[in-house]
Amino acid sequence: MLLRNVFLLLLLTVAAVAPARADDGYRLWLKYDRIADAAARQQYARSAQFIASAGTSPTLQAASGELQRGLSGLLGQAVPVVGTAGSRTGGVVLRVDKQASANGQPLKSEGYRLFSEKNNLVITGRTEVAVLYGAFALLRQVQTRQSLAGVNFSSNPRIDYRLLNHWDNQNGTIERGYAGSSIWQWYQLPEGLAPRYTDYARANASIGINGVVINNVNASARYLTAEYIGKVAALAGVLRPYGQRVYLSVFWAAPKVLGGLPTADPLDPQVKQWWAAKSEELYKAIPDFGGFLVKANSEGEPGPQDYNRNHADGANMLAQSLGRHDGVVMWRAFVYKAGSGDRFKQAYEEFQPLDGKFDPKVLVQVKNGPIDFQAREPFSPLFGAMPKTPLVLEVQLTQEYLGFATHLVYLGPLIKEVLEADTYAKGAGSTVAKVVDGTVDQHALSAIAGVANIGSDRNWTGHPVGQANWYAFGRLAWDHTLSSAAIAQEWTKMTLTTEPAAVRTLTDMLVKSRNIYVRYTTPLGLHHIMGESIHFGPQPWLAKAGRPDWTAVYYHKADSIGLGFDRTATGSNALALYKPEVQKQWGNPQTCPLDYLLWFHHVGWNQRLSTGRTLWNELATRYYTGADSVLWLQKQWAQVRPQLDPALHADVTARLQTQRKEALWWRDACVLYFQTYARQPLPAPLAPPTRTLAEVKDLVNLYQLR
Amino acid sequence: MLLRNVFLLLLLTVAAVAPARADDGYRLWLKYDRIADAAARQQYARSAQFIASAGTSPTLQAASGELQRGLSGLLGQAVPVVGTAGSRTGGVVLRVDKQASANGQPLKSEGYRLFSEKNNLVITGRTEVAVLYGAFALLRQVQTRQSLAGVNFSSNPRIDYRLLNHWDNQNGTIERGYAGSSIWQWYQLPEGLAPRYTDYARANASIGINGVVINNVNASARYLTAEYIGKVAALAGVLRPYGQRVYLSVFWAAPKVLGGLPTADPLDPQVKQWWAAKSEELYKAIPDFGGFLVKANSEGEPGPQDYNRNHADGANMLAQSLGRHDGVVMWRAFVYKAGSGDRFKQAYEEFQPLDGKFDPKVLVQVKNGPIDFQAREPFSPLFGAMPKTPLVLEVQLTQEYLGFATHLVYLGPLIKEVLEADTYAKGAGSTVAKVVDGTVDQHALSAIAGVANIGSDRNWTGHPVGQANWYAFGRLAWDHTLSSAAIAQEWTKMTLTTEPAAVRTLTDMLVKSRNIYVRYTTPLGLHHIMGESIHFGPQPWLAKAGRPDWTAVYYHKADSIGLGFDRTATGSNALALYKPEVQKQWGNPQTCPLDYLLWFHHVGWNQRLSTGRTLWNELATRYYTGADSVLWLQKQWAQVRPQLDPALHADVTARLQTQRKEALWWRDACVLYFQTYARQPLPAPLAPPTRTLAEVKDLVNLYQLR
Repeated sequence: MLLRNVFLLLLLTVAAVAPARADDGYRLWLKYDRIADAAARQQYARSAQFIASAGTSPTLQAASGELQRGLSGLLGQAVPVVGTAGSRTGGVVLRVDKQASANGQPLKSEGYRLFSEKNNLVITGRTEVAVLYGAFALLRQVQTRQSLAGVNFSSNPRIDYRLLNHWDNQNGTIERGYAGSSIWQWYQLPEGLAPRYTDYARANASIGINGVVINNVNASARYLTAEYIGKVAALAGVLRPYGQRVYLSVFWAAPKVLGGLPTADPLDPQVKQWWAAKSEELYKAIPDFGGFLVKANSEGEPGPQDYNRNHADGANMLAQSLGRHDGVVMWRAFVYKAGSGDRFKQAYEEFQPLDGKFDPKVLVQVKNGPIDFQAREPFSPLFGAMPKTPLVLEVQLTQEYLGFATHLVYLGPLIKEVLEADTYAKGAGSTVAKVVDGTVDQHALSAIAGVANIGSDRNWTGHPVGQANWYAFGRLAWDHTLSSAAIAQEWTKMTLTTEPAAVRTLTDMLVKSRNIYVRYTTPLGLHHIMGESIHFGPQPWLAKAGRPDWTAVYYHKADSIGLGFDRTATGSNALALYKPEVQKQWGNPQTCPLDYLLWFHHVGWNQRLSTGRTLWNELATRYYTGADSVLWLQKQWAQVRPQLDPALHADVTARLQTQRKEALWWRDACVLYFQTYARQPLPAPLAPPTRTLAEVKDLVNLYQLR
Repeated sequence: MLLRNVFLLLLLTVAAVAPARADDGYRLWLKYDRIADAAARQQYARSAQFIASAGTSPTLQAASGELQRGLSGLLGQAVPVVGTAGSRTGGVVLRVDKQASANGQPLKSEGYRLFSEKNNLVITGRTEVAVLYGAFALLRQVQTRQSLAGVNFSSNPRIDYRLLNHWDNQNGTIERGYAGSSIWQWYQLPEGLAPRYTDYARANASIGINGVVINNVNASARYLTAEYIGKVAALAGVLRPYGQRVYLSVFWAAPKVLGGLPTADPLDPQVKQWWAAKSEELYKAIPDFGGFLVKANSEGEPGPQDYNRNHADGANMLAQSLGRHDGVVMWRAFVYKAGSGDRFKQAYEEFQPLDGKFDPKVLVQVKNGPIDFQAREPFSPLFGAMPKTPLVLEVQLTQEYLGFATHLVYLGPLIKEVLEADTYAKGAGSTVAKVVDGTVDQHALSAIAGVANIGSDRNWTGHPVGQANWYAFGRLAWDHTLSSAAIAQEWTKMTLTTEPAAVRTLTDMLVKSRNIYVRYTTPLGLHHIMGESIHFGPQPWLAKAGRPDWTAVYYHKADSIGLGFDRTATGSNALALYKPEVQKQWGNPQTCPLDYLLWFHHVGWNQRLSTGRTLWNELATRYYTGADSVLWLQKQWAQVRPQLDPALHADVTARLQTQRKEALWWRDACVLYFQTYARQPLPAPLAPPTRTLAEVKDLVNLYQLR
C-alpha cells in the first residue's frame, strides 16, 4: 500500500513538473492521449493485452506499430507486439487471410473485418493494407469510446480510388493553399525524407485514402524529368506501406519542352512514343505508380485542342501510353471557353458528346458543381449524363471560396449534398454517389478526389477545423452512406474532446457551419460574387475582368427588376442539361428550393418567396441572420472552453473573431450593393450598416493590390 | 532510503515510458535542456536559487520569465521569481538603474552589466530592455557552461539599429525564402496572434536584434492601408516587450494606388502631404514605429527618378514625413540601370555623388558587395566613399546564392570578412565595420541589416545550420569584434551539444564551410554564374537573358585566352572606385589575393598563379578539392552522431548527401564548360567527369522550367 501510494504521488508530481505542452494540432485525429476514466481504460486494457502480428512487411509493421502506439497511449501502459498469440487471450490479432469474408461475401481487397475469436480480437482482410485499415478502425473504436466487447463488424470501400489532389507547385507554393507551403520538400528529395511524410501517410491511411496526386493540375514539366522522377519515387516509397499510390499531374506540352519534339499532338507517332517511354520510365522507378491527372485546354493550359484533337484523343493516347501497367488517366472536365455562352453549360457541351469515346483506363474528373467550388452549387449536369464513362467526383477541401483558413466551415454537409443529389439518370435514386461509385452504370473503375487543404502549417490545415474536412472527405470517400453529423462527431471525439455535452455542442456547430457561411456570403443561390483572382471577400460590384465570366455581375445579374441568373428556357436554358425530374424541381421559381433560386431564376425584388418575405427582404434577412449566426458559433465555442486544450481553443476563438468581422464585411457589402438596385430600405428590425458602400469597398478592394 | 530508491526507480520508469521526443529544432538555441552533469548543475544552482524582479512591465516580465524558464530547465528544478531579494542570497537580481555604468563609463541605453553583489548575481542596465539582454547573456553563460562565480562583465552594442529584413510577401510567400512560408499570418491578424510570434521575438532579443522590417522590399501597397496598419500594430505589440521595433518597406507609388493622387513625385505638395498623414497614422497606431525601408528605381520598382528626381529627393521627403517622430528612412543603394557599363560601378555612380545631400534621418543601405550577395565579393566601394551619410550594411542570411537550405554554409566568416575589410577611407584601419558603426565619420546613426532566412518551417531556417546564421548575424550586429569561430562555438554549445570534442569538430566544420562552398561553386573570384532567376545550380553557359548583366558570360568573360572580368584601367576600371591602398592590393594580378583574382582580372589560362599552378590547373583543382571537401564535412558530421539528437543528425546527414551531389554538379558543369575555352586536359591526378557537359546541362537546366 505504501509503495502504491508513493507511486501515485510521484506520478502526480511528475505530471505537475512536466511542462504544459500546448496542443499544436500536429497529431490531427490520431491523438491517443490516455483515457482519463480509469474504469474505461481497464475495460479496454482487458481486450488489448498484446498485439499479435507475425508480419514483417512494412505494411503489417505499420499496422502493428500504429496499434502499439495508439493502444499504449490510450491505455497509459505499454502493449507488447508478439509474433503469434499462441495460447494467449485478451489480445489483438492481425491476420491476412486471402479467403476473408463478411456476411457471407468475400471482402473487397481493401475491406476489413473485426471479430472476436477465442477471446481475442481479430483484425482480418484479404490484403495487408486491409488489415492496416482494420487497425485504424479498431483504434477509432477506442478513441470514440465504443465498446470492444463482442466486436463484430466489417467494412468495404464503396469507391475504389480515393484520392487527394495536391495543388502544390514545384517552388513550394500551393495554388489556393491557406496552410503554409507545400509539405513536399523537393530540394531535399530524394535524400531527405522528412518524418512528416510518414505522419501524412498515417493520417491518410487512417481514413482510407489510397492515392495522392502530388502536384498542381497547372503542372510543371519538371516532374517528368529523370531527376524529379527519382524524387517522386522516394516519396512513393514512404507512402507505399500505407497503401497510397502516387499520381502525377502532367503538363501537356512536356514532349515539346522536355523531349524537344516539334509538337504535342496526341496523334503524332513521336509524341505517342515519347509518352510511352516516359510511362515505362515512371513504372521502372515506381512499380505501383497510379497514373496521370490532366488539366488540358483549360484556363490557358495547353492540350490536344491546340492540334485540333479532342479531349478523348488526348486522354486515350495517355491511357495507351500506360501499356500493360495498372494505371489510370483522370482527365478533368473543368473547361470553359471564353465567350461561348453560359459558363454553366460549357463543360457539359465539351464532354457529354465524348461519352463512349474514352479508353477503359480513362476517368473524367468532374467538379461537384457546374461553376467552380462555390459555397453551394447544384450538382454538375455531367453526373448522370455520361453513362459510358466513369466519372471522378472532384470536391475542394481547401477553402478557396469558403473563407480561406479563417472561416469555420465543416464541409461534410456540402460533400453529402452533392453525393445525395439525385440525377434521375436511371430513374429516382440515381444519386451522384451511385453514379460515381459505379453502381448506376456498372463501371469497373470508380474514383473520388478531394483538393487537399494540407500545408506545412504545424496543424496541417491552418484552421484547426480544416482537419475535419480532410477527415470527412476520407470517410465519405470510403463510405458515402455515412452521415456528415456522425463523421463530425467521430472527428470531434478523436480530436477535441470526448466529454458528451461538449461533443454535442461541437458537432452541432460543425453541422450548421456551412449553411451559416452560405447565408452571410451567397444566400438564395447567389454565386461567384467574391473578390477577383484572390477569391477573398465580397466583390459583387466587379464588372470588368479579363473575361466576362470572371466578373461578379455576369453571375448575379442584378438590375432594377430583380436578381439572379435565368437559366430556364427564357434564359440560358442550362436547366435543360438536367433530367426532366430535376428540371421540374428547379424550373419553377415558385417551387425551386430557395437554396438554388438565384442559380436558375431572375427573381423580382418584390416577388414573395415561400418564406412569406419578398426577395429583397429575404435576401437582407439572410445576410443579417447569417452574420449573426457567427455570434452563435462564438458562443458555442466559448462554452466548450473547459473541455478543450487552451492553445487550440484560443486559436479558434481568434479565428471566429475574424470570421465575425469578415461576415459583417460580406453582409454590408452585399446588402448595400444590391440595395442600389432594389432601391428600398431594409426590412424591420434590421438596422442599416453603419458604414457606406464606398467604405466597405475600400476595406476589401485592398486585397486586389499586388 | 527505501522511498528515495523508489522515487529514482519511478523517475527512470517514467523517463523510459515517455515517448522519445525528436528535437525538431523549434527551440533554436534557446534549448534549456537539463545539464547532464549533476555536479555542474549543483554548482550553477547555488547561484540561481531565485530570481528577484520587482518589475511588472512586459519587458521585465519577459526577462524574469525567460530566466525562470531557462534556469529551471537547465538546473532541472523550479527556480522561483520573487519580488525582491530582501536578505536572501544566492539568487539573480534584475535591476533597472538609470545610472548604471561599467568600467567607469555610463552604459549605453541597451548595454548591460552582470556583477556579483552580496552573494547575488545582479543584472543591470539603464533600461528594461538592457536588463532583458543581460538576462539572455546570463543564460548564455550557463548554456555554454561558463562559470557564474565572480561574474563581472558588461556589454554595449556597437551598432544602434540591428535589423532583420524580411522579404516576406503579403500572400505568404517569401522572396528568396527556403524555409517554408512567411511566419506572419496576415489573414489571421490582428485577432490571431500566433504563439510563434513570441518565440520569434525571444530569439531575436536573445541576440540583440532590435528591429524588424516585416515585408519585402518589393513592397505591396497593402501594408499602408488602415486595415493592414491594424495588423502591423498587433505584431508590433508582440515584439515591443522584447525590444524590437517594426519597420515597413514601402511601395513608392502608394500615394497613387492608395491615395488616388495623379503622381508620386516626391516634390509634389500633395504627395508630401499624403506621406505626412500616413506617417501620422502609423505613429498613432504604433507609437514606436521604426520607419521605412525603400527599394526605389531598382529592378522595375517605381521611384523618384520616374519624376526626374533623385534618390535624395525621395529619401528626404519620406524622412520629413516622419516629422517629430523618432523614425528613420533606410534607402537602398541596390540599383543598376540597364545598359550603363559595368554593373559593379552603378550603385556607386548613382549614390556617391549624393553624399551630403541626405536628411539626417536617412541612412543609405548598401549590400556588402558591389553585385548581389555572391558567395564571395569584395566589399562595396560605397563603404568609405560617403563620409557624410550613415550607411547601413546589408548582408543576406537567406542562402539565395549559397545553396538554398541544402548546403551547409556558416556565414559568420562571410560577414566578418566584409566587416574587417579595410576601406582606407581615413587611412589604414578604416574598416567597413567602423564605417558602419559610425566611428570613422562620427555619425549619430548606425545600422546593420540581415535579410532573414526565417520561414514557417518547424525549425525556422530549413537547414538546421541556417539557425547559426541568424544567430551569428545578431551577435555580430551587437559586437562586430567577436570572432566568427567563437560565435560558431557558442551556437554549437547552445544548440547541438556541449561535449568538448564534438564542439571542436562542429565548430571546425562551420568555420570552414563557406570557403568549401566557394571552392566548388565560384573559386578564384568567379561570380554570378548560377542558374537564371532561380539562382539554383550552375549555369555558366547562360548567355542570353532579359539583360546582359543577368547572364553568366557577362561576368566570367571566358574566351580562348583566359577567364575573368578585367576591372582595372585596361577594362571597366571599377577598381578606381576604391582608395589607392585597395587598388594597390587588387590591381596587380600577380599580387591580387586569389580569392578576388577573377573579380578584377582577365587571366590567361596558362598564367602561373602564386600557388605554382596555372590558372586552368588551379581552377580545376579548386573545383575538385571543393567538391571533395563535402566528403570531409560528411565524415565530420558522422563522427558527432553519438552526441547529437538522432532526428536532427539524420536531417543534416541527408542534406549533406544532397550537397555532395550538387557540389559534383557544380564541379562538372564548370570544369566541363570552362574546358571548352581552356582546351586542355585536367591536371593529374584529377579524373575527368564521368558525364558530358550536355548531361550536366540537362540536369540543372530543368530548374528553369516553369
